[in-house]
Amino acid sequence: MTLPLPAVPTRIVAAPMAGGPSTPALVAAVGNAGGFGFLPGGYRKPDQIAADIDAVRRSSEAPFGVNLFGEPPERPEEAARVPAFAERVAARAARLGAELGTPAHPAEGVAAKVDRLAELRPAAVSFTFGLPTAEAVQRLHDAGVAVWVTVTSPDDARAAAAAGADAVVAQGWEAGGHRGGPTDDEPAQLGLLPLLALVRRATDLPIIAAGGIADGAGVAAVLTAGAALAALGTAFLRTPEAGTPPVHVAALAEARPTTVTRAFTGRRARALVNGYTADLTEDAPAAYPEVHLLTAPLRAAAKAAGDAENLHLWAGQAHQVAEEIPAGELVRRLAAEAREALAAATAALGS
Amino acid sequence: MTLPLPAVPTRIVAAPMAGGPSTPALVAAVGNAGGFGFLPGGYRKPDQIAADIDAVRRSSEAPFGVNLFGEPPERPEEAARVPAFAERVAARAARLGAELGTPAHPAEGVAAKVDRLAELRPAAVSFTFGLPTAEAVQRLHDAGVAVWVTVTSPDDARAAAAAGADAVVAQGWEAGGHRGGPTDDEPAQLGLLPLLALVRRATDLPIIAAGGIADGAGVAAVLTAGAALAALGTAFLRTPEAGTPPVHVAALAEARPTTVTRAFTGRRARALVNGYTADLTEDAPAAYPEVHLLTAPLRAAAKAAGDAENLHLWAGQAHQVAEEIPAGELVRRLAAEAREALAAATAALGS
Repeated sequence: MTLPLPAVPTRIVAAPMAGGPSTPALVAAVGNAGGFGFLPGGYRKPDQIAADIDAVRRSSEAPFGVNLFGEPPERPEEAARVPAFAERVAARAARLGAELGTPAHPAEGVAAKVDRLAELRPAAVSFTFGLPTAEAVQRLHDAGVAVWVTVTSPDDARAAAAAGADAVVAQGWEAGGHRGGPTDDEPAQLGLLPLLALVRRATDLPIIAAGGIADGAGVAAVLTAGAALAALGTAFLRTPEAGTPPVHVAALAEARPTTVTRAFTGRRARALVNGYTADLTEDAPAAYPEVHLLTAPLRAAAKAAGDAENLHLWAGQAHQVAEEIPAGELVRRLAAEAREALAAATAALGS
Repeated sequence: MTLPLPAVPTRIVAAPMAGGPSTPALVAAVGNAGGFGFLPGGYRKPDQIAADIDAVRRSSEAPFGVNLFGEPPERPEEAARVPAFAERVAARAARLGAELGTPAHPAEGVAAKVDRLAELRPAAVSFTFGLPTAEAVQRLHDAGVAVWVTVTSPDDARAAAAAGADAVVAQGWEAGGHRGGPTDDEPAQLGLLPLLALVRRATDLPIIAAGGIADGAGVAAVLTAGAALAALGTAFLRTPEAGTPPVHVAALAEARPTTVTRAFTGRRARALVNGYTADLTEDAPAAYPEVHLLTAPLRAAAKAAGDAENLHLWAGQAHQVAEEIPAGELVRRLAAEAREALAAATAALGS
């Protein structure tokens, strides 16, 4: 049994951006404009997630989702490389007057979050960094909550379908922030259009397309390529409802290239190139959340100091296109542009 | 003054695939089905190009293009690394009973090719590996031949416009074969959808989209994203009209990932992962055409022996989707699928 997609009149999803940007205000504004917002559940405790859901519901009756991270696998060989990496990070931290955090490997506590979400019943719960357990899928389905799984390859999509997912979030290589599939070892580095072509052939599940979608033409393009919904993250980072630090908001408008790095968290993520990524990407171990916990105080200090060279400036490849406009206006504009783009392409191709 | 795009009823371009695949028969078949084919002019002498053009014109009255490579820049520091790289390649060559070639740096002879093409007047001449000179643009424009330039970034697109291009071929990171921009140092690795969004904002020139377009839905997607034409390469590699070696045709259907490597030619190109790329990518110098000439006999031997582990198996990221069907049938099918995809997306988004 699979649950249907929620009704999303504009077909636009605001992707979950953990660590600050995806506020309840952003989720409510997106939903009220006919989009589908996402609260981040990774890095958050069940009570915090519940409070965020309550805040959304005080401002909007629209459906929305919550994103969870999977339990991080132990990688002892990579974790053993963390102390040497910490010495490299320490110099940068010292310059900012920051300490380093303690690299531990705590459980994410997914089961407890699923239990709480089965009570609170958002329209969908999406999973990144791994598949949900059979128990989690059952629990959410029994509560009428759809289960979405982030995938970055057709094999991931097959695994998600086998695990009982109701939809897959196909994340192209262009996407800002963390690579969200079960693994971030991705030799194929699939861009969104090839990924959609391959995932459509791997599963009949509805596909939410994500990665490098910058404007209404991009929304229309992925719907045309077979996606049921289009998810945008970076495009919402500069909206006033987002909790993006000002230094990050400003950097997005620059022509800096992006890079994919493990140096901030131990999981690969796409960020604007800065001094930190240039210095530390090569040596970063694949140890999540150890590296995340190690570097968190340094990044907090950089955020407070407005220091773009030591902050994780998550950004998709078309970040320069993001504008500072209210989120609801952005959703409406994207949908209008998407309709125009479809009409123009239809006229160009003839019938 | 810019020349208009040629009339391409299906909006589908068969990208130039040098070194064998893009035969006159392929170009004629694509043109006769309402597509726009390309003859490769790189690796070819002016007389060979003229003979190819003649062969196309005996089978088709449709417009078509010719692709040229720019003059390769001298990179002495990289060229100095070739002897050490040659020692690494020698072991693989010995196993195949092949010699190594001589790593030289001959001129491409672009000016002579342009002279000949100004006489022969294909509808368009496209440039990869660098911008055309002002003289070349003038010569072609005087002959009524449109000038297209391959770009992989918005800065490239601005430079192409400044050089007098009539259109830009925006090549996404997903594309098979050589990275075709003026430089293959591409920190941004832009996927096709972000590239289109950024190039549209950098220039008003018409855009031909290339890279990872696998099927009619992909064609429709890039037209929707703002491209005037959609170029496919890998999709045509398995057609009977293409001159693709059988070992390459067979490998395309496999689920192998692709990688971007300088190990075959000294310029970065996307190929299926094989023994050769796994062994030699890390050490390959950025010396084109030195590495191309060095490895050519090894690759010729691999082709003759049907050895997939030592051949340059150029492939875009969605290579598994390519089918063994006649090129004309493929063009017609892609156009029909594209129309269906646009209609479905229009229905889904509403009006």
